[in-house]
Amino acid sequence: MASQLSNWEQLIAPEVGEEIFAFAARIFPICRSITGNGVRQTLREIGSHLALQVHEVPTGTEVFDWTIPREWNISDAYIKNAAGDRVIDFAQSNLHVMSYSIPVRKRVSLAELKEHVHTLPQQLDLIPYRTSYYADDWAFCMAHRQLEGLREETYEVVIDSNLKNGSLTYGEYLHKGQTDEEFLLSAHVCHPSLANDNCSGVALLTHLARQMAGLRTRYSYRFLFAPGTIGTIAWLARNEHNSRRIKHGLVVSMVGDGGGPTYKKTRRGDTTIDRVMGHVLRHCGLTSTIEDFSPYGYDERQYCSPGFNLPVGLFQRSKYGMVPQYHTSADNISFIRPQHLMESYSVIVRTIFAIENDAVYCNTVPKCEPQLGKRGLFGRVGGENIAADNMAMLWVLNFSDGAHSVLDIAERAKLPFEMVMRATQLLEARGLLSGGPPAPDG
Amino acid sequence: MASQLSNWEQLIAPEVGEEIFAFAARIFPICRSITGNGVRQTLREIGSHLALQVHEVPTGTEVFDWTIPREWNISDAYIKNAAGDRVIDFAQSNLHVMSYSIPVRKRVSLAELKEHVHTLPQQLDLIPYRTSYYADDWAFCMAHRQLEGLREETYEVVIDSNLKNGSLTYGEYLHKGQTDEEFLLSAHVCHPSLANDNCSGVALLTHLARQMAGLRTRYSYRFLFAPGTIGTIAWLARNEHNSRRIKHGLVVSMVGDGGGPTYKKTRRGDTTIDRVMGHVLRHCGLTSTIEDFSPYGYDERQYCSPGFNLPVGLFQRSKYGMVPQYHTSADNISFIRPQHLMESYSVIVRTIFAIENDAVYCNTVPKCEPQLGKRGLFGRVGGENIAADNMAMLWVLNFSDGAHSVLDIAERAKLPFEMVMRATQLLEARGLLSGGPPAPDG
Amino acid sequence: MASQLSNWEQLIAPEVGEEIFAFAARIFPICRSITGNGVRQTLREIGSHLALQVHEVPTGTEVFDWTIPREWNISDAYIKNAAGDRVIDFAQSNLHVMSYSIPVRKRVSLAELKEHVHTLPQQLDLIPYRTSYYADDWAFCMAHRQLEGLREETYEVVIDSNLKNGSLTYGEYLHKGQTDEEFLLSAHVCHPSLANDNCSGVALLTHLARQMAGLRTRYSYRFLFAPGTIGTIAWLARNEHNSRRIKHGLVVSMVGDGGGPTYKKTRRGDTTIDRVMGHVLRHCGLTSTIEDFSPYGYDERQYCSPGFNLPVGLFQRSKYGMVPQYHTSADNISFIRPQHLMESYSVIVRTIFAIENDAVYCNTVPKCEPQLGKRGLFGRVGGENIAADNMAMLWVLNFSDGAHSVLDIAERAKLPFEMVMRATQLLEARGLLSGGPPAPDG
Repeated sequence: MASQLSNWEQLIAPEVGEEIFAFAARIFPICRSITGNGVRQTLREIGSHLALQVHEVPTGTEVFDWTIPREWNISDAYIKNAAGDRVIDFAQSNLHVMSYSIPVRKRVSLAELKEHVHTLPQQLDLIPYRTSYYADDWAFCMAHRQLEGLREETYEVVIDSNLKNGSLTYGEYLHKGQTDEEFLLSAHVCHPSLANDNCSGVALLTHLARQMAGLRTRYSYRFLFAPGTIGTIAWLARNEHNSRRIKHGLVVSMVGDGGGPTYKKTRRGDTTIDRVMGHVLRHCGLTSTIEDFSPYGYDERQYCSPGFNLPVGLFQRSKYGMVPQYHTSADNISFIRPQHLMESYSVIVRTIFAIENDAVYCNTVPKCEPQLGKRGLFGRVGGENIAADNMAMLWVLNFSDGAHSVLDIAERAKLPFEMVMRATQLLEARGLLSGGPPAPDG
Repeated sequence: MASQLSNWEQLIAPEVGEEIFAFAARIFPICRSITGNGVRQTLREIGSHLALQVHEVPTGTEVFDWTIPREWNISDAYIKNAAGDRVIDFAQSNLHVMSYSIPVRKRVSLAELKEHVHTLPQQLDLIPYRTSYYADDWAFCMAHRQLEGLREETYEVVIDSNLKNGSLTYGEYLHKGQTDEEFLLSAHVCHPSLANDNCSGVALLTHLARQMAGLRTRYSYRFLFAPGTIGTIAWLARNEHNSRRIKHGLVVSMVGDGGGPTYKKTRRGDTTIDRVMGHVLRHCGLTSTIEDFSPYGYDERQYCSPGFNLPVGLFQRSKYGMVPQYHTSADNISFIRPQHLMESYSVIVRTIFAIENDAVYCNTVPKCEPQLGKRGLFGRVGGENIAADNMAMLWVLNFSDGAHSVLDIAERAKLPFEMVMRATQLLEARGLLSGGPPAPDG
Repeated sequence: MASQLSNWEQLIAPEVGEEIFAFAARIFPICRSITGNGVRQTLREIGSHLALQVHEVPTGTEVFDWTIPREWNISDAYIKNAAGDRVIDFAQSNLHVMSYSIPVRKRVSLAELKEHVHTLPQQLDLIPYRTSYYADDWAFCMAHRQLEGLREETYEVVIDSNLKNGSLTYGEYLHKGQTDEEFLLSAHVCHPSLANDNCSGVALLTHLARQMAGLRTRYSYRFLFAPGTIGTIAWLARNEHNSRRIKHGLVVSMVGDGGGPTYKKTRRGDTTIDRVMGHVLRHCGLTSTIEDFSPYGYDERQYCSPGFNLPVGLFQRSKYGMVPQYHTSADNISFIRPQHLMESYSVIVRTIFAIENDAVYCNTVPKCEPQLGKRGLFGRVGGENIAADNMAMLWVLNFSDGAHSVLDIAERAKLPFEMVMRATQLLEARGLLSGGPPAPDG
């Protein structure tokens, strides 16, 4: 246990924020969608760090109420004006094309063009991110100011995309622990060049998986990189029986901005991950928010559908939809920062630490307080104020009665888990506590 | 179900406030007490709209700890000064005589008169409402300013009342539903010319009963118009066994002023009517208050006595005793307004709608979300914010797991019951929900 | 019951504050520690008022994890400067010597002296209170300003103390009630001249025990005057089996200052003493605070250790450590006041009154309200506002259903226990309630 503790602390190196940021920046330019080569390329980048298992689910496969769609790829797209200039060019921003646009090549009037353009009239200079996965349609997205500047003339619109039978791609990596019980960490990989949503989450989990390699853990950790909604549904359809192994889980998205952090509880609302995230956020030093479950958001929608009802919450910085950059071209690489990525990473590592180490201990001297002074565990001179570390010891001794775990005690004492855990380890070493985590085995 | 829904909505016609007001104004002048012809005349007015059953309980009948008193009637009363002018005249306001005053006819000094006069020294121009049902006494009530103006002279006081063996009168109307389980709606009819307290409640319930006629309902609705305290006690004594049919109930009083609304919970505090009223008031757009049960107020005191402990709450606008007009001549017809009566009526209709329609449904596609888009139930273009109606659908799908009713879901989603019910009906029509209300039968 | 009530009220005589103060002032000068003649002298003072049983526990006795230390006594101590003047003299304040200092007699430089001096650099003129019970050490305590004024010279330091095999002393007094179930009242007697901490608590309990003499009570009341921590541990070790008789308990310390009052709940947090203290403090007219249990403070640490987990809370005025006088020479006799002692005493007496009298009654007329008017229990004229005493009767009648005690009703009604008890007694006398406290027996 003691060696594990020091290992966990090693997970948070000073350069962790920079490293996660660098990987997020590397995968930022890729044009992803719910299928296609952009996802594959992203998974290859992840796979250069992890022994990632990549799965292909063929077009037409039924996954619960859904069907895997045709695969979408795109090579070029533009709008040319009468003079032959590209006024919109996919090469400049992959947000310019509505995802899953069918191929188009024709000449249109300005009026007809406008029927196929999305803008944000409230945010004049930003390109919106739009999708149309399940309807045959095409559209461009652009800054509203640019649209207003277009003259009445004939435009050539070209989307050089294709929709063909192919497959949907996802990747997963399993860190094997001492038990088969799993902690699921899930990030969507279907958004194109949006840095926070979700290059940040993909990069954070890639870094975490890499850091955990070789570490002895109680739980197994499953890292899932799948397209949102349909990819997660495909994974659940193929892993329905195994999903019951998931004892804790987090969807990780938008973890690079400076807001929050925000944790949205699981549908059950009282699971261990809910309690631990609540505890860690209360002690993380940032202005955190805990939200009740609601059935809109990211892939927790699928994990927490009533037929699964898994203990999976959502971890973010700013809540989705609550910042003006959300789903626009302003969610670019300058919107995320190494410092924020590091803070988000710390929250997840501290959460894992608490879940790994939480256990019920028993005070071996339960009648009256044990004499800590004679064991060198307490200040020698009485009458002064008591230090926090000493308080943590008193809390642990008083509530280690077989009914309260370390987390229970930390919550009741309003002290961070790590401090209470340290007191627990010290007291256990002196023989004042027995018990601890159950031995993993069969 | 659909037809019922539209019927319920029809209950709230634009002119409802005016109609309730008109009936309240019609019964306002009648001099009511806990017995006597004023109550009978009021019940005749109600009976011109409803097939009201009128009951007479003879003087001397024992009803639990109480005895039906002699019947009180009054034809005239006045105070004449030495000059022979009526300084107080019952014909001008029936509040001038303390209810149940024994007959008197004598000449008194000002000092003796004062021993038989009630005023409100804090509200100089208002006549108080006073009663003395169970003690042989007589008194006048008048404005304090008028009392102070009376000169030292001899006054002739006459109360031409009589107290004779007779009976106590109450009326009830039963709207038969598909089951024998009852929703009780109770208004006291014992106050003389006080518009809000309780011509408003009597008129509102009369209108509601009339509107519900012919409507197919799950519950039976019992409308009780009885004198306060003793009348309700008489009804309970005669209907003790049947009272267990009451599954929900409201005492309705003072529903025409612009305060509140105020709901006082049942003694149990966690019944369906408590939950539904809380929900409806949170979504009614007015500044509502929910109060815990207390053993003082209106006839909920009897329904919620420990030997009955019925699920009956109290619905009002301003809380009794909290406005200066309470129990004074200022509670006249100008104190109540059609707009306020309409709002109060809406609250009760929405409450009935929720209680009629609440049921547990089951999502037929519980594993992951069903694909709403392919059924035309969802916006086609992704990436934008979601509409409230779509959110309601997601809430219903996620929580229709056999353990949450429509009301449970509305509460959790913080959405009005009607919106969640609409989503439920839409999803049921598309086969995404099964279940619903239990079939009524034997 | 009625005679007991009047007796309880007699417990709070107008001069009670002065009498408690006088006794606190009398025992203030004594130099106490966890063993020795100071404790014995204090117990002799208490014993002059009560039939106190005094116990001696020999040095070396094992009490759970602890061992009774050698007995410490001290006759003189000083620091003399080169001129032979006593710059510090134990005779002036027994706080000048760290409690349990070993004997010393030597000449030291200023630098060496400073290694054996405690001061309060933030409170320049106050002498701190310090102890070193379980380590062989010696030290003086003094005002920081005085220390800064000492010149570089040679000092003679003398502590004429001795540490010898002897015993630890505590005293207890049992007021026998009708049952063997006990209410424990515990005050520590180990602090030297600190008036609030805890001459105040010792004096208050001495007065209370004296006042209760001869009074018939339901519970037995055990008054324990023991040195903090080790004395209480010794008592628990010798009374382990009997400790299960303790149904309610209070540690009483620092009850003479004008802060609070503060009540710290038992470890269980939902015991009768927690509910009653919460109730009494809400109605005591002072700005009270209720705190959750924490494992630091006074002897509740031992009573609430997990192996005992007794229902013992802590009653104080200001919370320990929260006032600048705490554990300094400023906690002198002028820091406590008769008025504050009287208020603290009242809180404890009202708590005892509620615990003695709380019981479940049954309304004998549970169906509808009984007619109070015909029994002369209610105002005769209706329509006016209702008095608090009448409300108390309605609350008692409505909730005396066999499931709610007088305290439950007082809490729900937000009325003081005494007022609800008075209504209960009145209604019982008129035959409207049956039941009441169980007959004490075998």
